[in-house]
Amino acid sequence: MPLSLTEVPSGQKVFDWFIPDEWNIKDAYLITPDQRKIACFTDNNLHVVNYSVPINTNIGFEELKAHLHTLPDLPGAIPYVTSYYENNWGFCLDYHTYQTLPEHGAYHAFIDSTLAPGSLTYGEAVLEGESDEEILFSTYLCHPSMANNELSGPLITAFLYRELKKLPSLRYTYRFVVAPETIGVIAYLAERGEHLKAKIKAGYVITCAGNPAPFTYKRSRHGNTLADKAAEYVLHETSNGRASVLDFFPYGSDERQYCSPGFDLPVGSIARSMYNTYPQYHSSLDNKEFIDMGTLAESVSMCEQICRVLEADEKYLNQIMMCEPNLGRRGLYPTLGGRNITNQDILSMNWLLNYSDGNHSLLDIARLSRVSIRELKEIAEKLVNAGLLAKINSVASLVGYRTKLPE
Amino acid sequence: MPLSLTEVPSGQKVFDWFIPDEWNIKDAYLITPDQRKIACFTDNNLHVVNYSVPINTNIGFEELKAHLHTLPDLPGAIPYVTSYYENNWGFCLDYHTYQTLPEHGAYHAFIDSTLAPGSLTYGEAVLEGESDEEILFSTYLCHPSMANNELSGPLITAFLYRELKKLPSLRYTYRFVVAPETIGVIAYLAERGEHLKAKIKAGYVITCAGNPAPFTYKRSRHGNTLADKAAEYVLHETSNGRASVLDFFPYGSDERQYCSPGFDLPVGSIARSMYNTYPQYHSSLDNKEFIDMGTLAESVSMCEQICRVLEADEKYLNQIMMCEPNLGRRGLYPTLGGRNITNQDILSMNWLLNYSDGNHSLLDIARLSRVSIRELKEIAEKLVNAGLLAKINSVASLVGYRTKLPE
Amino acid sequence: MPLSLTEVPSGQKVFDWFIPDEWNIKDAYLITPDQRKIACFTDNNLHVVNYSVPINTNIGFEELKAHLHTLPDLPGAIPYVTSYYENNWGFCLDYHTYQTLPEHGAYHAFIDSTLAPGSLTYGEAVLEGESDEEILFSTYLCHPSMANNELSGPLITAFLYRELKKLPSLRYTYRFVVAPETIGVIAYLAERGEHLKAKIKAGYVITCAGNPAPFTYKRSRHGNTLADKAAEYVLHETSNGRASVLDFFPYGSDERQYCSPGFDLPVGSIARSMYNTYPQYHSSLDNKEFIDMGTLAESVSMCEQICRVLEADEKYLNQIMMCEPNLGRRGLYPTLGGRNITNQDILSMNWLLNYSDGNHSLLDIARLSRVSIRELKEIAEKLVNAGLLAKINSVASLVGYRTKLPE
Repeated sequence: MPLSLTEVPSGQKVFDWFIPDEWNIKDAYLITPDQRKIACFTDNNLHVVNYSVPINTNIGFEELKAHLHTLPDLPGAIPYVTSYYENNWGFCLDYHTYQTLPEHGAYHAFIDSTLAPGSLTYGEAVLEGESDEEILFSTYLCHPSMANNELSGPLITAFLYRELKKLPSLRYTYRFVVAPETIGVIAYLAERGEHLKAKIKAGYVITCAGNPAPFTYKRSRHGNTLADKAAEYVLHETSNGRASVLDFFPYGSDERQYCSPGFDLPVGSIARSMYNTYPQYHSSLDNKEFIDMGTLAESVSMCEQICRVLEADEKYLNQIMMCEPNLGRRGLYPTLGGRNITNQDILSMNWLLNYSDGNHSLLDIARLSRVSIRELKEIAEKLVNAGLLAKINSVASLVGYRTKLPE
Repeated sequence: MPLSLTEVPSGQKVFDWFIPDEWNIKDAYLITPDQRKIACFTDNNLHVVNYSVPINTNIGFEELKAHLHTLPDLPGAIPYVTSYYENNWGFCLDYHTYQTLPEHGAYHAFIDSTLAPGSLTYGEAVLEGESDEEILFSTYLCHPSMANNELSGPLITAFLYRELKKLPSLRYTYRFVVAPETIGVIAYLAERGEHLKAKIKAGYVITCAGNPAPFTYKRSRHGNTLADKAAEYVLHETSNGRASVLDFFPYGSDERQYCSPGFDLPVGSIARSMYNTYPQYHSSLDNKEFIDMGTLAESVSMCEQICRVLEADEKYLNQIMMCEPNLGRRGLYPTLGGRNITNQDILSMNWLLNYSDGNHSLLDIARLSRVSIRELKEIAEKLVNAGLLAKINSVASLVGYRTKLPE
Repeated sequence: MPLSLTEVPSGQKVFDWFIPDEWNIKDAYLITPDQRKIACFTDNNLHVVNYSVPINTNIGFEELKAHLHTLPDLPGAIPYVTSYYENNWGFCLDYHTYQTLPEHGAYHAFIDSTLAPGSLTYGEAVLEGESDEEILFSTYLCHPSMANNELSGPLITAFLYRELKKLPSLRYTYRFVVAPETIGVIAYLAERGEHLKAKIKAGYVITCAGNPAPFTYKRSRHGNTLADKAAEYVLHETSNGRASVLDFFPYGSDERQYCSPGFDLPVGSIARSMYNTYPQYHSSLDNKEFIDMGTLAESVSMCEQICRVLEADEKYLNQIMMCEPNLGRRGLYPTLGGRNITNQDILSMNWLLNYSDGNHSLLDIARLSRVSIRELKEIAEKLVNAGLLAKINSVASLVGYRTKLPE
């Protein structure tokens, strides 16, 4: 994915925030009184609290303890800890190692880091479509070594980009954003927020979508936007009832910014095991073994199917509104009537013709009829060729699933 | 039912359709190589594909086969087959007979039919009421020898006409239509569509309502019209929960035309075992044994009850809107208070007085209170006589059933 | 509760009613042929039909019978009977006593009562708050000796008054009404109805709330007023699902007048075992043993909690609408990020900030977030102090409970 990068300098105000200094680190470790070298940054970057200030000092255990982080409930795991907005330093250890630490004697704590003006980086890629109306995919890149709650998002987004780029044409323009969570997206919205407010038709935050658990879709703040309709339609069609759909709640990932009341964009969130709901979350156990490539591919496919639904979701107008058109003389209806004359193509034609009244898009008709939008689209094109439907400008309407259809 | 008939000449354009030529037939049969005369029109008209062109020819089995229709799954039944819009001919046989046909030797196929300019006929009867607002009952007459999916409709409609005619007065004007399915109703709407759009308050297509199965009500396209409210109310009151109510779907019978987007009339559909849902459908097994007179009478009664609800569904205005009126001094309330003073009549008065606020009709109040509209009507008239209610022009409103009432 | 009393003279017209004469009684009894003195008013006032005209006569059993009232199904209970609007007299007996009455011989019936012009009395108390918008509590005082269906209402109302008076300040003005049921409230509304229409934000009729059964809340006529939202919220929070909520129905207690279509006030009704639903209703068994002080205290507390919710239900406006505010630099967010950083206070801040968009009050946000309004209020004040929220004029909006929140 050919990301164009934007650098936002430290100290710049972005809405209510300031871009912090840039943190860089070369090495870090602890030397125990019995001369073991532990918590080596070079073994695992999680050993150092992210954004730790430099330190190079001898220190007793009592004082050191306040700077050590462990997970007694997951004794083999190194926790993931950050201190972005306060000068601090610390080491993260698995609890087994922590238990071997002598209480007496001098430790040596060493962190060779710098915290100095620099810049925050975010990346953006755009696939131009026929329309300047946009679909957004946003993910984050700021939890080094986390797999599900980090790597999964950029991987899925990048592969989705590749799949969409293969398509011969796109109706919508697709925008892909990779930024540090929270501050990165705030910086991004400070730059692009007004543009998105004007252009975005649907958007999704991709997070924690690499572990083999069923999908979770978290609705946009309005709960019935085009983003929600399309995602729920695809989940409904593909998940055999195993996916969860949650109403919006104002904590979680970057939908917090996209759905802050001043933006209130049609942005939902696609995940599998959501943040905070799995024990490996924010620890060294959220690693490559916790995710797998098949699952990631399936997540890419889910996103692609949502895009295909959005692409397909045209609106047509029936050209013969008074009574049904005569399908037979246009070769669209069997000439021999009897039992079972109503094959699925003809039922689909009926749905399209009756509901292409200016108020219903293909996605609406798919939800009413339980015929797939792909099939409806094919049939709709036949009906356009026969002069029975005409494509009109799409407007999202709000039709619910039907509860009851005849057997 | 004194139907006035309208003839629409062959070739006339009706919306997107043309009236086809008129088909008449005198005789038809097949002579087998072993000299059996089979598929005789005079035995059963279903033996000939409806609208078959004339034929009088010797023909081999291989060529003949393309003109033979059977139902291997129902080997004793003759299928019902039509070819309205393409010149074709054919014979329909039970599968047992078909299996006896020799593969060699010459068959003689004979159909003495004419297909020539003539006319399509539809019939209409009107019972004038006090108002020019109309209730429509529509059914079809075009499947010769079919019982449930044909005869039941005109029978019910005719007997309904007779029952309504007996009533001393009618508030609404009732319109009864008997026409060939699809093309007949399209022709009818070409003539009367604008009138119906202006006048119709509720309408019903009667189809497949003669076999002893529970009622099925298919809602109008809007799903909450007066037609739907009245029919669902009666089903709710009378069916002990055995009736089905289906949302509109754009295939089936003539509601396809009445509910095409350019008309979108408040027309639902009343059936028992709906088209396409019973094995006898469109075969010689959909015959008089499949229906019965008691069931037909019950269907007539169901329709009549719907009419009575529509007739009864007045709207009243409470003449004393501030606090309750004093029922006692008008002799409408027991003078002795104590336990159980609230008999059903008084509860009904309370419902009527409180909700006759200009927004609720009797049917609305019946649905809110679960008191029958018949009882409400009687009590309402008492309250009119007492000067507490005044009748006002009815407007249908949209009140749902209440989920919870005190025990 | 310092009630100010209003006297409405007999004969005065109040809407559709006239204030009846005033009834006073000194003594009443029956002497049986075997010289027993029974049905003594001085033993139990229920022995006399309320509003009985004076009588002092010898009478045979046959004639007397029409004036005797019993409850054969509750043979130990004396029924409660009234005859407000027709001149009549009568005695109420337990059925056991009734069965001992000789059929022959002369009875002496004695009622020393007067029925003469006087006045109807109602009482009103007001607790002034900062705003002239009002909350109403209404109850009745007209069933002498009834405990649940009478005494419970004034007791709860009086103790609620006492509790609310203790509060250092009140946002709303609270109005307490004690009047005879029906005619008393009609007279009250004749005087104060227009004032209430202009000022009342929520109101409750307190009835039958002293017996140890779960709460029943009967909604106002609109069913989604502030009265309903607040009461249902408190029941939802406190009842462990044991409370019942009923839609409005136009019979019962004084909500019949407050919710008559010309007033249609936001007045619901708070009860435990509702009128007419318990066997002791309107008999001498609805006595002090049927209610208990602990239950009454709990009912007072329920009402007080509703008031506290109404008092707390402010509306705030987020001062930083674009993206989230930076809580950390205001000391409102932990500086150390990792697992479980989202404690409940922070989630509550997120809910408050995201939904304080001008459309949602605290009660709305409590219903969305399932965080208690008390907790939200505390956190909201912190956010006001931090300059992140500003209080705005409250407007009731209509947000439903959410069906699904993440675990």
